[in-house]
Amino acid sequence: MASAPAFQGVVPPVVTPLTADFQVDYPSFTRVLEHLIGGGVHGLFVLGSTSEVVFHDEATRRQILEHAVKVANGRVPVLAGVIDPTTDRVIGHAKVAQSIGVAAVVVTAPFYARTSQPEIVDHFRYVRDGIDVPVIAYDIPVCVHVKLDRAGVVTLAREGTIAGLKDSSGDDGNFRFALMDLADKPEFSMMTGSEIVCDSVLAAGAHGIVPGLANVDPHGYVRLYDLCRKGDWAAARAEQERLCRLFEIVWVSLPRTSAGSAGVGGFKTAMRRLGIIDTNVMARPQRALNDAEAAKVEAILQATGLLG
Amino acid sequence: MASAPAFQGVVPPVVTPLTADFQVDYPSFTRVLEHLIGGGVHGLFVLGSTSEVVFHDEATRRQILEHAVKVANGRVPVLAGVIDPTTDRVIGHAKVAQSIGVAAVVVTAPFYARTSQPEIVDHFRYVRDGIDVPVIAYDIPVCVHVKLDRAGVVTLAREGTIAGLKDSSGDDGNFRFALMDLADKPEFSMMTGSEIVCDSVLAAGAHGIVPGLANVDPHGYVRLYDLCRKGDWAAARAEQERLCRLFEIVWVSLPRTSAGSAGVGGFKTAMRRLGIIDTNVMARPQRALNDAEAAKVEAILQATGLLG
Amino acid sequence: MASAPAFQGVVPPVVTPLTADFQVDYPSFTRVLEHLIGGGVHGLFVLGSTSEVVFHDEATRRQILEHAVKVANGRVPVLAGVIDPTTDRVIGHAKVAQSIGVAAVVVTAPFYARTSQPEIVDHFRYVRDGIDVPVIAYDIPVCVHVKLDRAGVVTLAREGTIAGLKDSSGDDGNFRFALMDLADKPEFSMMTGSEIVCDSVLAAGAHGIVPGLANVDPHGYVRLYDLCRKGDWAAARAEQERLCRLFEIVWVSLPRTSAGSAGVGGFKTAMRRLGIIDTNVMARPQRALNDAEAAKVEAILQATGLLG
Amino acid sequence: MASAPAFQGVVPPVVTPLTADFQVDYPSFTRVLEHLIGGGVHGLFVLGSTSEVVFHDEATRRQILEHAVKVANGRVPVLAGVIDPTTDRVIGHAKVAQSIGVAAVVVTAPFYARTSQPEIVDHFRYVRDGIDVPVIAYDIPVCVHVKLDRAGVVTLAREGTIAGLKDSSGDDGNFRFALMDLADKPEFSMMTGSEIVCDSVLAAGAHGIVPGLANVDPHGYVRLYDLCRKGDWAAARAEQERLCRLFEIVWVSLPRTSAGSAGVGGFKTAMRRLGIIDTNVMARPQRALNDAEAAKVEAILQATGLLG
Repeated sequence: MASAPAFQGVVPPVVTPLTADFQVDYPSFTRVLEHLIGGGVHGLFVLGSTSEVVFHDEATRRQILEHAVKVANGRVPVLAGVIDPTTDRVIGHAKVAQSIGVAAVVVTAPFYARTSQPEIVDHFRYVRDGIDVPVIAYDIPVCVHVKLDRAGVVTLAREGTIAGLKDSSGDDGNFRFALMDLADKPEFSMMTGSEIVCDSVLAAGAHGIVPGLANVDPHGYVRLYDLCRKGDWAAARAEQERLCRLFEIVWVSLPRTSAGSAGVGGFKTAMRRLGIIDTNVMARPQRALNDAEAAKVEAILQATGLLG
Repeated sequence: MASAPAFQGVVPPVVTPLTADFQVDYPSFTRVLEHLIGGGVHGLFVLGSTSEVVFHDEATRRQILEHAVKVANGRVPVLAGVIDPTTDRVIGHAKVAQSIGVAAVVVTAPFYARTSQPEIVDHFRYVRDGIDVPVIAYDIPVCVHVKLDRAGVVTLAREGTIAGLKDSSGDDGNFRFALMDLADKPEFSMMTGSEIVCDSVLAAGAHGIVPGLANVDPHGYVRLYDLCRKGDWAAARAEQERLCRLFEIVWVSLPRTSAGSAGVGGFKTAMRRLGIIDTNVMARPQRALNDAEAAKVEAILQATGLLG
Repeated sequence: MASAPAFQGVVPPVVTPLTADFQVDYPSFTRVLEHLIGGGVHGLFVLGSTSEVVFHDEATRRQILEHAVKVANGRVPVLAGVIDPTTDRVIGHAKVAQSIGVAAVVVTAPFYARTSQPEIVDHFRYVRDGIDVPVIAYDIPVCVHVKLDRAGVVTLAREGTIAGLKDSSGDDGNFRFALMDLADKPEFSMMTGSEIVCDSVLAAGAHGIVPGLANVDPHGYVRLYDLCRKGDWAAARAEQERLCRLFEIVWVSLPRTSAGSAGVGGFKTAMRRLGIIDTNVMARPQRALNDAEAAKVEAILQATGLLG
Repeated sequence: MASAPAFQGVVPPVVTPLTADFQVDYPSFTRVLEHLIGGGVHGLFVLGSTSEVVFHDEATRRQILEHAVKVANGRVPVLAGVIDPTTDRVIGHAKVAQSIGVAAVVVTAPFYARTSQPEIVDHFRYVRDGIDVPVIAYDIPVCVHVKLDRAGVVTLAREGTIAGLKDSSGDDGNFRFALMDLADKPEFSMMTGSEIVCDSVLAAGAHGIVPGLANVDPHGYVRLYDLCRKGDWAAARAEQERLCRLFEIVWVSLPRTSAGSAGVGGFKTAMRRLGIIDTNVMARPQRALNDAEAAKVEAILQATGLLG
């Protein structure tokens, strides 16, 4: 490759720990960030879906971001989610993030509003025009209920509007085509949001992975990434399979809770058991995992080598 | 009926006119409000989907609401949409709305976040606990991608958490069951967001209608409502059918624009032609109707008697 | 009206009773047909979804149809569902139905195969060209996973390819537009498959209703239809609401069974309790209602006046 | 591995060529079969979605299957799709297939009928009980509109009801979990229906691939499979990417035709250009590719090395 992308490697979407009364727990948050950086990750994605970003108002988002940038202190780049329904509100968040000194902002398609693919392409252009920091497109149809189409992503990449793509669509075939489409543009960062097919996606040419589960086991994902870079695919597969078994923590509270609460709630419950954070509280109206569910999480942590 | 619901009649979701540079056009907004009140409507729903609510930040929402309350000046009640992805942000909007003096706040299920029906029920409870103004539940799956289920609505109504329902789900059968379920609770407001089956829904016992198209023709919807109240179903059907033909303005820009831009954009283009507002500009990244599309809107206005 | 449509009134989709070993129970089937004709229905729709049509092979379909035509013996017209995934197979079924002497065949969009709206329009044309009996279009997206679009239906109606529409889409707004589009063509039969908004749809101009629930209570639907024809909307609403309460039998086995099994299974269980059929057996792999569920059905029958 | 699955390698779903008047073109069909066997494939899947199975009636299906078994003449196993909406009709097709001597039958979930996951599990059990030939489960939600859930597949595999899974769901993460769940049961065949992530899926432990595109380029898929078996992942990726570029033939007629017509129609058009079949006719009501679209297919064939 002629040039490397600005964003690559393991870039976890960082969990936002909460106190019992639903405030950000900054001492726990510091521990999360140190846990990740100490685990060898290559960047931090703050204020993503895993961070419960849409539950936080503007003031809280600013505090979270300032805290993360301060703790990271240049050791790894901080990417900031600037996620809200529409263009000008996204620009508002992005200006704040830029002023705090993030390396890039991560932008979804509009939501609640019903927009077309050409309007979505314009959305990214308006956002990029409104700020002076790289934009990563975030394809997450499970939340915004529209998929970024392949042609639009390629157009935005080639014209320089976006500097990368975080693909959380689960459509690995489409992502593969996007990788091929942009293979001649290696400075463009192709990252997956998947926890469970990282080896496949890296083998196909992706530059980075953004697994929420890395909050629980950053070492595992860094190990997986390094094995893939070395081309040791058999060992990579074994590590990926161990992480897949760990990933089962995201389903233990279904259907008592929603899928959203179950996923991040599973991460938080595991992190509490590992001593990284103090509570597994979820932002309202989400339900936290209960004791019986926490016991199932603990059993999975033991089975996958994360507990004595 | 023992008692009448607090909210009934024709309660249009009020269009928010914009200037060419995407700012709220307050002189036009005043004209919209006077046009509606002069047309005989029974209430105003400000900051709903038709108002492009999710495109406006907190400061702008406050200004819009203050303006509407000032212009209405007690002539009709003002309902305020407090629409954002999650519980505590909704409470934040609702506190502002309450301080401005609205008659009720209108609340959707959470969006972007993936929540379950029990979590959604809790969401309405948390919101109601956080403020001191009636809450209307807003069922709009096309925007939030989840339907309020019948059992949850009935629970929330019976326990007093919500004072009414605005049903924009398009599921008229389900709405009919909810009407029957709550027939012994006539103080609870049952309203539809439909423009095109108002006579049917009123015949089945609904108390109010919230048609975006009433921005274009408030007199028509007030006439329709009055005919239904009198039980003159044949005349009501004829008026409803004229309004259905007028409703065709919401599709003229498809598929060049999104469905969202086409709908509110159709309203704005008609209102511009009728001299009520100055532009048909849509908030970014939505596309406004172009001249060819505006000509089609004009033809429909003429065919339905709104233009000489 | 200049002319009346060939198909109007109450045209129930006829339940197909089964023996304990999954064969058609013809003595029970005779009783169902007599129960319906005796209840005053205006036609019979045999081999529709409610008839479990797709569970029956070609030979069985032929026998069912022959039996129905023989029992009806010209007292009411028999419409035949000719439902299978693709065009030429539908033509095959339709030729058989024509040879048996049905009044019309009822045709859905293709399924399993993924076809476009223009291909679906061609599908109806090919079917109509292949036979010599009227074709009714059957819009049932819950089964075929595509909606017949309004423009296609109007085209097919105007060119004479289809003689009527059975709308089971639940999209009553769209159906309303179709009614208006074809208001100048009164010989075209507009029928709804809804059980729960029949009064609304008849008030809006529909000619017929095709409620599965009429298998349980044909007298109720005939009464409802007659009240609507007379314009006695208040009494019609009361009867519709009673039938809505009866309709709750379709949900008692959820989620233990699928929605499909719950619906037709609810009808069969009620009909067994009323002595019309011998078993509530469902075609494989569907699950029949169990005793506890049957008790709930019985309670609803009593509450709605169908039992002692 | 202790034992190898009965079905593995490259097992193309075989295109069914048609004459200009929509009959099966058996001379072309023979050439397709020889083209595939000569290309080194390890099995043939006849009467799958790519074969336009649901367009063919029972008599035609029998002829197609007899022809395929005769031409194959034991050189490779023939798997037969037995695809129709419901259990007993599937058993009917399966008995015919068994009598013709196929190696296995391939069975989807029910369709048109709405069934639950437990009913779907029973469906496979009833089919297996009704015949004496191995059953492969075919997970194809794009056609049947329900996904086989992971727990159900594992249950059916462990109890011996099914001998393999063809996964055409596009949910590669879920397939990965199923591979892990059944890793201790190597005689169970795990196959993907994907054309575009074959290397990933084989690297994760799948035994076979069932790519429709192999009708056009069997040598390419056999080469890909062999490279994966050898663990030459870099060369495998290059071959997979060439095949991905070839796969673009499935989209050239969109949106003029449906996705279904575009896909198989793209294969047929390429095969006609390569001299394997005589027409690119699609079963009614599907539209065949036109000359302009055929030219685009030809360009792709040239760019990917399949035309001089």
